Amino acid sequence: MADKKNLLIIGAGGVAQVTAHKAAQWAKEFGTLHIASRTKSKADDIVTSLRDKGHKMPFQTYALDAMDSKAVAGLIRKLDAGVVINVGSAFINMTVLQGCIDAGAAYIDTAIHEEPDKICETPPWYANYEWKRREAVEKAGITAVLGAGFDPGVVNAYARFAEDEYFDKVDSIDIVDINAGSHGKYFATNFDPEINFREFTGTVYAWQGGKWTENKMFEVGREWDLPVVGKQTAYLSGHDEVHSLSARYKDADVRFWMGFGPHYINVFTVLQSLGLLSEQPVKTAEGQEVVPLKLVKSVLPDPASLAPNYTGKTCIGDLVKGKGPDGKDGEVFIYNVADHKDAYNEVGSQGISYTAGVPPLAAAVLIARGDWDVKRMANVEDLPARPFLELLGEMGLPTRVIDATGDHPI
Amino acid sequence: MADKKNLLIIGAGGVAQVTAHKAAQWAKEFGTLHIASRTKSKADDIVTSLRDKGHKMPFQTYALDAMDSKAVAGLIRKLDAGVVINVGSAFINMTVLQGCIDAGAAYIDTAIHEEPDKICETPPWYANYEWKRREAVEKAGITAVLGAGFDPGVVNAYARFAEDEYFDKVDSIDIVDINAGSHGKYFATNFDPEINFREFTGTVYAWQGGKWTENKMFEVGREWDLPVVGKQTAYLSGHDEVHSLSARYKDADVRFWMGFGPHYINVFTVLQSLGLLSEQPVKTAEGQEVVPLKLVKSVLPDPASLAPNYTGKTCIGDLVKGKGPDGKDGEVFIYNVADHKDAYNEVGSQGISYTAGVPPLAAAVLIARGDWDVKRMANVEDLPARPFLELLGEMGLPTRVIDATGDHPI
Repeated sequence: MADKKNLLIIGAGGVAQVTAHKAAQWAKEFGTLHIASRTKSKADDIVTSLRDKGHKMPFQTYALDAMDSKAVAGLIRKLDAGVVINVGSAFINMTVLQGCIDAGAAYIDTAIHEEPDKICETPPWYANYEWKRREAVEKAGITAVLGAGFDPGVVNAYARFAEDEYFDKVDSIDIVDINAGSHGKYFATNFDPEINFREFTGTVYAWQGGKWTENKMFEVGREWDLPVVGKQTAYLSGHDEVHSLSARYKDADVRFWMGFGPHYINVFTVLQSLGLLSEQPVKTAEGQEVVPLKLVKSVLPDPASLAPNYTGKTCIGDLVKGKGPDGKDGEVFIYNVADHKDAYNEVGSQGISYTAGVPPLAAAVLIARGDWDVKRMANVEDLPARPFLELLGEMGLPTRVIDATGDHPI
Repeated sequence: MADKKNLLIIGAGGVAQVTAHKAAQWAKEFGTLHIASRTKSKADDIVTSLRDKGHKMPFQTYALDAMDSKAVAGLIRKLDAGVVINVGSAFINMTVLQGCIDAGAAYIDTAIHEEPDKICETPPWYANYEWKRREAVEKAGITAVLGAGFDPGVVNAYARFAEDEYFDKVDSIDIVDINAGSHGKYFATNFDPEINFREFTGTVYAWQGGKWTENKMFEVGREWDLPVVGKQTAYLSGHDEVHSLSARYKDADVRFWMGFGPHYINVFTVLQSLGLLSEQPVKTAEGQEVVPLKLVKSVLPDPASLAPNYTGKTCIGDLVKGKGPDGKDGEVFIYNVADHKDAYNEVGSQGISYTAGVPPLAAAVLIARGDWDVKRMANVEDLPARPFLELLGEMGLPTRVIDATGDHPI
């Protein structure tokens, strides 16, 4: 047991809860298990939910200001943590990564770094923060896996899987994310409203014809007919994975499509048109400075509160087109279907948190086992896809493929 | 000149601007002219707009905290003001009225008193604040005319006009307010958004069958076919005048209908459903306390800013049904049509401010002349209607009637 890596999870929201439950299920892969959060009581709540599901492992909890890289490094050293999973807010990536570099631990995150007062910076987004630390990561000899949630993350592995097992040349990657679930509220976002809306208020960047193209949100829509969830309209959206896949697949078109119903679009359009999704403060008649987006967040349901009544399924997959070894054009749809109710029954979270929280734990297991311990910074598509996808299948996120032979598991 | 009453206008928003312009046009009716506002520079801006229209009268401006009744009384005494027009926020009615009682000046307002943290109190609303001061007003020997804008105000006079000139018994009064104008913005309210939304977030009270009935906003809609503006859908709404007319016309049904297009209703519904129209503070994740309605107000266009590009017309009127001297059932529609562009050209304001800002000046003239100087508290329907409506015709708000003989001026 002594040579097993200790695991530190940073963050204690809905996604962190899933990651912690999976870590408890896969505890044999690690040494000791730890969770740190700005608010220790939130980490304690996760431990309570673990105990409710019958887990008896010794999960320790800590209060941590993850914006302070010295504090992060200090905790890593104190715990001798070998792998850190950052499932906290997207604002802490750079300080947590720095802590890992300083203390020599492997780093995993699930979403791109963001600065609170900036939305939708110059593409490719990874070049603005994460990739600037490539050299420092390599010099420190640590492994840093970026964007290892579902999307980004698993969908990046789907693209790599298509490259590895189907095509000599990839011509296009269309990632489609459909949540056909129902939470029964007037309106809610599936994860932190602040981050959720920030995804859609800026320019929609896609990589097409070898260059960045720009659209507005909801400008380009397309109907998809997908397994289980059926016909659904999805809209060209800005999303992290486009900003790394476009580097590996320079000659392919890379697009991200997210499904939205007319009600979501209407509420979003009203809020955005009025300026209520702005991350820039406004001043009230009384002179109070308020960031509209933060107020909107405070009136919306806590995404974690949706879980008990969430029903229905998600389908997230990659339609990849390319030229096979025979030189002929082909296409393959690689996907996963997840169920909100199943997720809640297993780990007490809704399906969106489940699909985001399981993959970073799979990445941590692969690093702990050595399969992915590459001692450099990597996006998921830079790493072998099959071991990741097979492990995800064991962990509850099976991958299926629709190819020339039909619809089957990988 | 010495026996003419000095006029003090309190408030310096869009409605106050109209009242001030009309006062300048009718300066011969008064002694000296004064405007006081919390922010003196806003009163100064109105004087500038008066000078731009060629008025040369000596309008003096003052900074005044109208929530302080002693300060109000002090200013009235200092100026020897005989008539005070309160066209400030609806939160200052009680302190301004008290100042008038203490200093012995006539009082006029255009909207019912409101407390910032209360919405839609027990009906009749006037009984909660204004009517409690009846005795004090009578004892002080001053005249206090309540709700002397357009609606409430002119529409109350329309009801009284129907009583005086058409019916022995009034059976129903349906007040219909249609703004068929266009301001070219995504969304805007025609007066202070805070007051505007507060009108629609509570219970819709109507007086029907001799008792208060309750509905929700947008629950009861009806199509009207009105002069100039044509077919328009209006919704049963809560409004001040229902709460005084129901006292004078106990045996009649009294309803207020306001026109809304589907876009307004959609934006309103989204904001209200999310809790963004609440007057109760919420706490953000960062711990800041914010009143959602105040933030929404801050992101919406200033109603005064709509004026330059506002086009189209308003139609506001009363459909009154009753029994005539011959004992037969009859009905009459008494109404005014106003034009946004004309209002802007004349006084630099949009039509909604115009219709609200002219009537209190007409009331002030009638008090100054003695016609309405009744030395007690009165709602507009308690006062002779014809002199008011005839003076409004001279001031730019002509009244027309559709009766058995056709559509004609009064």
